Amino acid sequence: MPDNEFQQRRARLLECFPTLQLDSFLVTHLPNVHYLTGFTGSNAMLLAAPGRDILFTDPRYTIQAAQETTCHVVTVRGPMLPKVVAAIARHKLQMLGLEAAYLPHLTHQFLREKLPLRHEFKLIAGQIEQHRMVKSASELARIERAVATNSKALDAVLKRIRPGLREMDLAAEIDYRSRREGASGPSFETIVASGVRAALPHARPTANPIEPNQLLLIDMGATREGYTSDMTRTLGIGKPSTFWKQTYRAVLESQLAAIEAIRPGVKASEPDRAARQVLEQHGLEKTFTHSTGHGLGLEIHEAPRLGRKEKTKLLEGMVVTVEPGVYLEGKGGIRIEDTVLVTRTGCRILTPTPKEWMVL
Amino acid sequence: MPDNEFQQRRARLLECFPTLQLDSFLVTHLPNVHYLTGFTGSNAMLLAAPGRDILFTDPRYTIQAAQETTCHVVTVRGPMLPKVVAAIARHKLQMLGLEAAYLPHLTHQFLREKLPLRHEFKLIAGQIEQHRMVKSASELARIERAVATNSKALDAVLKRIRPGLREMDLAAEIDYRSRREGASGPSFETIVASGVRAALPHARPTANPIEPNQLLLIDMGATREGYTSDMTRTLGIGKPSTFWKQTYRAVLESQLAAIEAIRPGVKASEPDRAARQVLEQHGLEKTFTHSTGHGLGLEIHEAPRLGRKEKTKLLEGMVVTVEPGVYLEGKGGIRIEDTVLVTRTGCRILTPTPKEWMVL
Repeated sequence: MPDNEFQQRRARLLECFPTLQLDSFLVTHLPNVHYLTGFTGSNAMLLAAPGRDILFTDPRYTIQAAQETTCHVVTVRGPMLPKVVAAIARHKLQMLGLEAAYLPHLTHQFLREKLPLRHEFKLIAGQIEQHRMVKSASELARIERAVATNSKALDAVLKRIRPGLREMDLAAEIDYRSRREGASGPSFETIVASGVRAALPHARPTANPIEPNQLLLIDMGATREGYTSDMTRTLGIGKPSTFWKQTYRAVLESQLAAIEAIRPGVKASEPDRAARQVLEQHGLEKTFTHSTGHGLGLEIHEAPRLGRKEKTKLLEGMVVTVEPGVYLEGKGGIRIEDTVLVTRTGCRILTPTPKEWMVL
Repeated sequence: MPDNEFQQRRARLLECFPTLQLDSFLVTHLPNVHYLTGFTGSNAMLLAAPGRDILFTDPRYTIQAAQETTCHVVTVRGPMLPKVVAAIARHKLQMLGLEAAYLPHLTHQFLREKLPLRHEFKLIAGQIEQHRMVKSASELARIERAVATNSKALDAVLKRIRPGLREMDLAAEIDYRSRREGASGPSFETIVASGVRAALPHARPTANPIEPNQLLLIDMGATREGYTSDMTRTLGIGKPSTFWKQTYRAVLESQLAAIEAIRPGVKASEPDRAARQVLEQHGLEKTFTHSTGHGLGLEIHEAPRLGRKEKTKLLEGMVVTVEPGVYLEGKGGIRIEDTVLVTRTGCRILTPTPKEWMVL
């Protein structure tokens, strides 16, 4: 990411200060700190103020912070907040923005107690997250590489899938191939669920073997250069019943209908509605128990969510997953998921992996 | 974990209610929810009250929650907090404990706005974390298996380490072996740092090759059955200079001194002081820029911390890392880390991997 991109992002946050009635912003949610500074360590806060952006971290990251960010870096041994408070006081910052959705209550309390009464705290919800929704060209390039890595990893393990292989060993294999293809790690715990276990939308891989004549659900993501990806494929193993083949067709139809509904200007609830409508036609709407998709980027779950009541309007440059599913307790489940980019005129499916009904 | 162990944990929390002046506790920090209920999903809150423990989650986890916990489970489609508020009101709970260190401000605000004025909120810091510090026999067994898995994974990759292998490929290999040995994943992003990069205590593995005649630092952890482990080893590759061999000896001496200082009743600052004292004798104290260790269990970083000003007294059954290090910018670094159990009379090093100076 070019250094000046981080500067531009901080500048954009600063531009919101008059409207938000702020003279500074204390950013504590790490992905937001990362987004605004480029710093990727596990402990940091950013105090953003005109002309004096200060990144606070600890001495483990002295060298790394100097390499990664153009902010002024303060490394703090021990508790960080007292030093943040000192900086706020020293720079006479009086209208401090805080992240309402993330700021732990204890931190809020500490700031209120330690700063003189003339300081005002404004709890701001979702401002930086909103900026993060629309991806820049360099972010999009990273997401595309993360998506490609993910698909290559699945390609590489497909030929090893067979009945008897343990779910956890296939998950290990997937993560390994993904790393070998350049991922820094999985974007979330890889899901490998065979047979009845595919009815659990967030199944953990177990020591159970992959069962013959059943479905196998794989949900995987590769993180690369800090950015995530997400894909689900459901495969038949051996001779799955005709029921599953038909149900698969319904889920695929639902997924394609949701994708069809994605374009700039529509509400994030629209693709969700489109997906549900198709499942309803097949009498399956009650088996689809989660929302249709979510944004991704620095985090695997970001705004916007494609859900029933979402009012956010889709914009060019947003990246979302589209992942309707059908879950039948005691029987199994199907989910089909792609990562999709909202384009100027509609959308583009980033995931290159085929999704036709496939039996191994 | 036996079901009744989770019940006992909730009972123990409830026993604190009179002292804390609570009639209920809303637990939102996921590892705490896991600790108290056994539920391992990624979205949940626990409302604990005498005779009515309610676990809130979403429909993705309906089946899993029923399998994992004996709590009453409520699955909520859409925002969870309104349902939590309704349950608090319905059960006439009026003195609600909240987790001060984790509760996002927005959640606090929502509860305050939606609940009638007669409700009191008590922000409680560290209560459940304090219970978690001392491990039960079944927790300890899990940690020991996580530690053994981690060491086996390092054993399995040692023979593959050679100059020219990329840091990221060795990290991928380590994680893969760890999974094959039974880990569900790494406890944190595996660190593989060669040469000058070992001066970064939290280095991310890069595409740089392992360099000959330098040090190689590996910091790795395996999560197994929900519990974590943590180990660092620093190896010589080829012919590292005598300076490094001598410095290694100083760090090892420091680590052993810290371990020697661990026994029930001593303050958590004591092992830290012991480690620093040895490094001071070698003129290296300023190069040791972090604290000496941390507790681990369901999380990779838990209380107690072994740091300068820690007043917590060590107790039998606590599990901590001991990991002094020396970091020389532009040159390299050394860290040696074991996972250690506080026993009745002293401590026991759980990590079986040798830590004598080793050159590959």
